[in-house]
Amino acid sequence: MSGNSIGRLFTLTTFGESHGPALGAVVDGCPPGLALDDADIMADVERRRSGKSRYTSQRREPDRVRILSGVFEGVTTGTPIGLLVENVDQRPKDYADIRDRFRPGHADYTYQQKYGLRDYRGGGRSSARETVMRVAAGAIARKYLRIRLGIGIHGYLRQLGPIRIEPVDVSAVDDNPFFCPDPGRVAELEAFMKALVKSGDSIGARIDVVASGVPPGLGEPVFDKLSADLAHALMGINAVKGVEIGAGFAVVGQKGSEHRDAITPRGFTSNRAGGILGGISTGQDIHVSIALKPTSSIRLPARSIDAAGAPVEVVTRGRHDPCVGLRATPIAEAMLAITLLDHYLRHRAQNADVRAVPPAVPGSADAARD
Amino acid sequence: MSGNSIGRLFTLTTFGESHGPALGAVVDGCPPGLALDDADIMADVERRRSGKSRYTSQRREPDRVRILSGVFEGVTTGTPIGLLVENVDQRPKDYADIRDRFRPGHADYTYQQKYGLRDYRGGGRSSARETVMRVAAGAIARKYLRIRLGIGIHGYLRQLGPIRIEPVDVSAVDDNPFFCPDPGRVAELEAFMKALVKSGDSIGARIDVVASGVPPGLGEPVFDKLSADLAHALMGINAVKGVEIGAGFAVVGQKGSEHRDAITPRGFTSNRAGGILGGISTGQDIHVSIALKPTSSIRLPARSIDAAGAPVEVVTRGRHDPCVGLRATPIAEAMLAITLLDHYLRHRAQNADVRAVPPAVPGSADAARD
Amino acid sequence: MSGNSIGRLFTLTTFGESHGPALGAVVDGCPPGLALDDADIMADVERRRSGKSRYTSQRREPDRVRILSGVFEGVTTGTPIGLLVENVDQRPKDYADIRDRFRPGHADYTYQQKYGLRDYRGGGRSSARETVMRVAAGAIARKYLRIRLGIGIHGYLRQLGPIRIEPVDVSAVDDNPFFCPDPGRVAELEAFMKALVKSGDSIGARIDVVASGVPPGLGEPVFDKLSADLAHALMGINAVKGVEIGAGFAVVGQKGSEHRDAITPRGFTSNRAGGILGGISTGQDIHVSIALKPTSSIRLPARSIDAAGAPVEVVTRGRHDPCVGLRATPIAEAMLAITLLDHYLRHRAQNADVRAVPPAVPGSADAARD
Amino acid sequence: MSGNSIGRLFTLTTFGESHGPALGAVVDGCPPGLALDDADIMADVERRRSGKSRYTSQRREPDRVRILSGVFEGVTTGTPIGLLVENVDQRPKDYADIRDRFRPGHADYTYQQKYGLRDYRGGGRSSARETVMRVAAGAIARKYLRIRLGIGIHGYLRQLGPIRIEPVDVSAVDDNPFFCPDPGRVAELEAFMKALVKSGDSIGARIDVVASGVPPGLGEPVFDKLSADLAHALMGINAVKGVEIGAGFAVVGQKGSEHRDAITPRGFTSNRAGGILGGISTGQDIHVSIALKPTSSIRLPARSIDAAGAPVEVVTRGRHDPCVGLRATPIAEAMLAITLLDHYLRHRAQNADVRAVPPAVPGSADAARD
Repeated sequence: MSGNSIGRLFTLTTFGESHGPALGAVVDGCPPGLALDDADIMADVERRRSGKSRYTSQRREPDRVRILSGVFEGVTTGTPIGLLVENVDQRPKDYADIRDRFRPGHADYTYQQKYGLRDYRGGGRSSARETVMRVAAGAIARKYLRIRLGIGIHGYLRQLGPIRIEPVDVSAVDDNPFFCPDPGRVAELEAFMKALVKSGDSIGARIDVVASGVPPGLGEPVFDKLSADLAHALMGINAVKGVEIGAGFAVVGQKGSEHRDAITPRGFTSNRAGGILGGISTGQDIHVSIALKPTSSIRLPARSIDAAGAPVEVVTRGRHDPCVGLRATPIAEAMLAITLLDHYLRHRAQNADVRAVPPAVPGSADAARD
Repeated sequence: MSGNSIGRLFTLTTFGESHGPALGAVVDGCPPGLALDDADIMADVERRRSGKSRYTSQRREPDRVRILSGVFEGVTTGTPIGLLVENVDQRPKDYADIRDRFRPGHADYTYQQKYGLRDYRGGGRSSARETVMRVAAGAIARKYLRIRLGIGIHGYLRQLGPIRIEPVDVSAVDDNPFFCPDPGRVAELEAFMKALVKSGDSIGARIDVVASGVPPGLGEPVFDKLSADLAHALMGINAVKGVEIGAGFAVVGQKGSEHRDAITPRGFTSNRAGGILGGISTGQDIHVSIALKPTSSIRLPARSIDAAGAPVEVVTRGRHDPCVGLRATPIAEAMLAITLLDHYLRHRAQNADVRAVPPAVPGSADAARD
Repeated sequence: MSGNSIGRLFTLTTFGESHGPALGAVVDGCPPGLALDDADIMADVERRRSGKSRYTSQRREPDRVRILSGVFEGVTTGTPIGLLVENVDQRPKDYADIRDRFRPGHADYTYQQKYGLRDYRGGGRSSARETVMRVAAGAIARKYLRIRLGIGIHGYLRQLGPIRIEPVDVSAVDDNPFFCPDPGRVAELEAFMKALVKSGDSIGARIDVVASGVPPGLGEPVFDKLSADLAHALMGINAVKGVEIGAGFAVVGQKGSEHRDAITPRGFTSNRAGGILGGISTGQDIHVSIALKPTSSIRLPARSIDAAGAPVEVVTRGRHDPCVGLRATPIAEAMLAITLLDHYLRHRAQNADVRAVPPAVPGSADAARD
Repeated sequence: MSGNSIGRLFTLTTFGESHGPALGAVVDGCPPGLALDDADIMADVERRRSGKSRYTSQRREPDRVRILSGVFEGVTTGTPIGLLVENVDQRPKDYADIRDRFRPGHADYTYQQKYGLRDYRGGGRSSARETVMRVAAGAIARKYLRIRLGIGIHGYLRQLGPIRIEPVDVSAVDDNPFFCPDPGRVAELEAFMKALVKSGDSIGARIDVVASGVPPGLGEPVFDKLSADLAHALMGINAVKGVEIGAGFAVVGQKGSEHRDAITPRGFTSNRAGGILGGISTGQDIHVSIALKPTSSIRLPARSIDAAGAPVEVVTRGRHDPCVGLRATPIAEAMLAITLLDHYLRHRAQNADVRAVPPAVPGSADAARD
């Protein structure tokens, strides 16, 4: 299987370039009988869509997703679900000046080295525009997880440059353009972004995603631990440079007596493990945190080389996000949902007969993440 | 493919439990014609072996790896390489007391929930003993990378609990039991560990692994980015809770003008990207950093439940590492080597005809990681 | 990976139902730099298209394939190639009467048993209409094989019901609606089909496909022998019930002294092996033969049951092929091409360094199939 | 995944050469809780073992299979099952004379072309000795199918050279060295084989394998149809040149009105489909038939070339089977069992929630194969 597919049983394959005619996806392996229509998908796609705020790219794409197969009389049939979005607001000419030069911090140089040529229009395949299809496919996974298994997934901005946010009210994330879980901090974020845009620079971000109601038992040791497959799915999002499960890098400074989560008949007393032990879900909340680098497409000039190897100065104009992290929350949620559903199917394939002994302790009700 | 295999073309499948009769592996897809004998493998396996210092488990296993197939007249034949290590120093009776109780922070509870039963002897399949086979297989990958491609791989301890180490002299890592790249800090580490062992507690660690001489072009966007597959391979190591590529989580606070690595005809001016852009290697050093949690097997008591769901107190005696991170360096190197070779083969499968234009800039000679 | 993808490195994923809005495919892993446009694909798709003769279904679909991605400035980029065909001549109402009954010999009953529901319009996903995308993807593989490797692929009708055909002139296959390689037999075939159509019945067929110019070395023992993967690819075509390599079932009656192909410095003296020994190509022509069952959709009544389990009589009206084998030649050629390209890439991934000793003997020049 | 693994969820990986130190296998994905011990495996391995009769190779291997992992306290744990057989009766020196020459009809030439070198001792990896591990793994699959699902698998000799056998009494197959299902024909087979051995020649064979009690719904259209995956699994057995499902190549001459199996409330009235429609099991018996070529290792001389490309005469002495088909029955049964269990797991992964409507008709009770 080539690199444009993810998942073993619930499989997503995507295609399409930023300024090509269309983006598409095939979702294979979805269980049959799930009620599904365009609106289910568009709800999540809308959350990701560019042009929603002045802090994201001003490219105006309606991102109208069509379901081309796999759904009949309103429910999934078990056959592959084809999804398509036509690109409408392409402006390939905006990119003529990068045809023969490599933007630093972008994939221009590496695609050219790998394939010997590249679609230079807006980054081609390496553009974050590809993630539209991840969100569309994630919406299907998410619906199954919610309806059939009672699993909820939510994400939020945890840090924007120097500004750290606590998840005070996760229900508020869709009420502001930052997916900020603390309404009281929105003004601060706005001021920061305003100044950043003015400066012509960009900034990194940290996003947390959480799954609640996950049954114990998901994950396939030893190589396809749930943690390992989540790391794969999330590190594969554009601009991500780090992934943490639970306490993440904080474990480096922890002692065993501090780190391990005690178990009681009423449940775990804490959740430093992030809901995964030995690569298998514990029944607690799954906590994943990712770091997104600042976009390299900024107005400030940078040194680079051209196709002939000569030094050039690169300045990016046009439509770009000053913080790609601002739109990453729905994408990270989608990848979490896809990975969980894939593992749910893998788990029940092997272990559908198992009657767990003893009954699982309660999940994350009283768990607190450190 | 089930969860005990990794790699698409250079594939490692492992089997074996901590206190079962043997551990084994199948390495499939290795190119033919590579000179290989037991000594190539034992060199790496020795570096990982327990019982080497008083800061690691005192279990005495000779870890004698036998090559059972795939090598003929001293060279690989292209057929699968079978590897086997007999377990010698099993003491399953040491574990009778955890038969019916779940050690907090361990995989006992999750294996039981997943499979309905578990091999409780020393963690069974979830034991870090499984990583012997990763190191053995990694030695094969590593030799190919070195001999045929000139790629070097080295790792080192970057942090032990509160003690941060700079890679002052990476050639010194094999001269001390900590894989410490700064000989001047070894005494400090010894003192820390001595006190830790006395206290009955354990500690986390951070390990860095680096690959030099990697050609540009490795990595399969969009889902199997080199970064994503490295995250998968390294997060799948026991006790790992975080993975970073290049600047990692530091990108959250960086601006685009700070983060992006400028390109010049003489090479990149920095390597915050960790050698990967758009999921494809740049030709610079690949930098990966991982966080390992403190082992939960400590002498200090913890609350847990038994198989009937009743509360119990768990105290771990027996042979355990107070810092699993101390032995993780060869394991992380092995997973890096396996992933790189797999991607090298994947890359040449698709792109063997490509003549890169322009010629690659020099690699990491002058690159510095931030 | 779910069941709608084929190939490990050159991967085809298809979606779409017979009477849904569209059929589509993603071709992933195609080497970059291959000149490709719509015409390359349409040439093969036209050969398969229905409505070409009075002996095939009278459904009128233009089968206009659009390339949506993976091609830029006239050449493949190495990123996934999205392909789409809109369905135009759907008549779902034709199928209202089979909504609640299962046509014998069709997939109606098995899809219902597997998924609990089915898209009953024209067989939904189980329709041979899905093979349009196989032919489109096969055209890409075929072009690469021809341009880069000099491999030629051709197929022909070998038997239609009782009429056995010898490949007298394979260049003539596109000059008649039967893909018949003996122009002198076309009249006989026409007479047979005319009588068959009049009778309301259908008939089986045998198709042979041959690849010439294949280099020795393709195939991955032991499970992914070239023969095994060809069997998988060709048995997966609708209505196929048998696959033979080389002498096929005739080997049952052969002695070793008759069967084995002698080797001389000027090449093999015969090709009973069909170009494959030990699962690896020999350099001779690859010969594969398949058996296609007669379609079950005929005007003659048959006994069956309805959704309530009650007995019913089924009579199929509407647009159907009296011999699905008549259109199978381009489909079988496509599956052969896809499998060979996939194996070519797999082979060079592992063995690109190999310098074969001794030089290969000449291929199939003087080989004759028994 | 490289070529030495088969199955997506129930996965078998094998290693080992004919005259290397050992053969081994890893069976991954087996459901936990299945009672399993050495005797379960040895029963099938014994049936395949060489040296059982004077019509098979006289190599004396005890084929003692050790279970190295994945079984604890007598039941499978869900972790990978490692299997090992030490080679005892190696005689590598027997093969010195083929070191530099290629036996016609064998894999010598193709391995050399593919890998640039080969283990020439008894065919190395290409030897049928590798199939010991298939049978061992198949025994595990078979036990699960029987105990948990009530699926029975049996095979038999259908044709030996010119002698066609009808399955008069399949319970008799283990009572004679030919797996002959008609006790009255055994003497005829013995006479034929005696004359054949005397002549120094070898002969082809046809083997049928049947699975009874298979639930409807197994198979993953469109590429991984049950028929396609069975063709892959069975064509991958050494010496197999043809695979048929149900009526197989006889469909070429059948009309639709003859071929299709009518459905009644009491079940199907015939089973020309071989238990598979649209790539999905119907609930009837699965019928597969394979053709095995005559071994090329015979005492009669043949023309070939040596490593320098010069013409040579090859005569095979030593220990060889005059009819490889005589031992193929347990191997074919094993591959059928492995494929069915893999598909059972794949099916329940996606469709565990499905409540089939209507209830399945009875299986194959009254079905007769044509």
